[in-house]
Amino acid sequence: MIKQKEIILPEFNRGFHLITDIIMKNITNLPEFGMLNIFIKHTSAGLILSENADPSVRVDFENIFNKLIPENQSFYTHIFEGSDDMPSHVKSGITGTSVTIPISKHKLNLGTWQGVYLCEFRNTGGNRRIILTTYS
Amino acid sequence: MIKQKEIILPEFNRGFHLITDIIMKNITNLPEFGMLNIFIKHTSAGLILSENADPSVRVDFENIFNKLIPENQSFYTHIFEGSDDMPSHVKSGITGTSVTIPISKHKLNLGTWQGVYLCEFRNTGGNRRIILTTYS
Amino acid sequence: MIKQKEIILPEFNRGFHLITDIIMKNITNLPEFGMLNIFIKHTSAGLILSENADPSVRVDFENIFNKLIPENQSFYTHIFEGSDDMPSHVKSGITGTSVTIPISKHKLNLGTWQGVYLCEFRNTGGNRRIILTTYS
Repeated sequence: MIKQKEIILPEFNRGFHLITDIIMKNITNLPEFGMLNIFIKHTSAGLILSENADPSVRVDFENIFNKLIPENQSFYTHIFEGSDDMPSHVKSGITGTSVTIPISKHKLNLGTWQGVYLCEFRNTGGNRRIILTTYS
Repeated sequence: MIKQKEIILPEFNRGFHLITDIIMKNITNLPEFGMLNIFIKHTSAGLILSENADPSVRVDFENIFNKLIPENQSFYTHIFEGSDDMPSHVKSGITGTSVTIPISKHKLNLGTWQGVYLCEFRNTGGNRRIILTTYS
Repeated sequence: MIKQKEIILPEFNRGFHLITDIIMKNITNLPEFGMLNIFIKHTSAGLILSENADPSVRVDFENIFNKLIPENQSFYTHIFEGSDDMPSHVKSGITGTSVTIPISKHKLNLGTWQGVYLCEFRNTGGNRRIILTTYS
């Protein structure tokens, strides 16, 4: 059985953001056992699961990703949409655009420290669309 | 309900390639709601979703990945299959080997700018096998 | 139809480890066609599919990831859990925390060279929990 819902996220600044609560509010009556897929319909943002407690983790994530895929490299050719654009596509290719989470006993079966991160790689990414699909 | 099909891709050069059309041709009669998983049966290639419009994005992807995981590093030990081999495994570990896409109203529910990329990390990767599985 | 099982892995040293056999032992009576999702409930470890034959691949993976995301960078702020902690979260964000594998004719439809890697990014990660979910 499939249940699907498309939602629009509020605008987030560039960076890594914990959005577990937003996801939770939008999935109700979970099946006893199943899976949840969260999918982002964009090529300059990503979704991952990571540490849900200390905000400094998200700050370091942003700085490490910027060092890994720096802006304004002389060999970039896709530059007409801004210096943050091409790096944002590559960062999105690295994080991926969906996460899949088991559902057990009507709940998301996340580890104690796991939360859902929106990875916003653009300076002004605007409202991002995500699709929540549960199957059981 | 599960539908599955294994296909063999034409040979692609090393680099990032848009293969959305090939995928589309091989999935027909999609369910009203469900998921598509695309899986590549290889350890030196990957699959991601990224920008589907400007070919320069794919050129930059290739150059950025080569800078990120360079060939011929002195500390590599898995070198007997060519200088492109060990980097290709790591690049594949970074991109991942499958993508999952929601199906809505009998269509892939991709964002406007999203396309399926084959990431061919070998100089001569040959024909790659992928498995298309829809579930609903 | 969903079948789910949570298992506890033996402790592994920091590094990349082939765990295909452990997975296989814990999934029996696979459906004719379907999918297997393997999910790790942690933020400092990952799961990928990669080369299953030569152990030197796993050694190089560890060294390449350490070079990619080095420890003890002066700009890190999340440092109170040890120098391996923040890098482990980022490495996990890069590899991802689940893999999805097609099931065909009652078997995992992996490529000849594909195996399941546990990516243990902590010096002392302890026993990791993973969830195996098959759906058909």
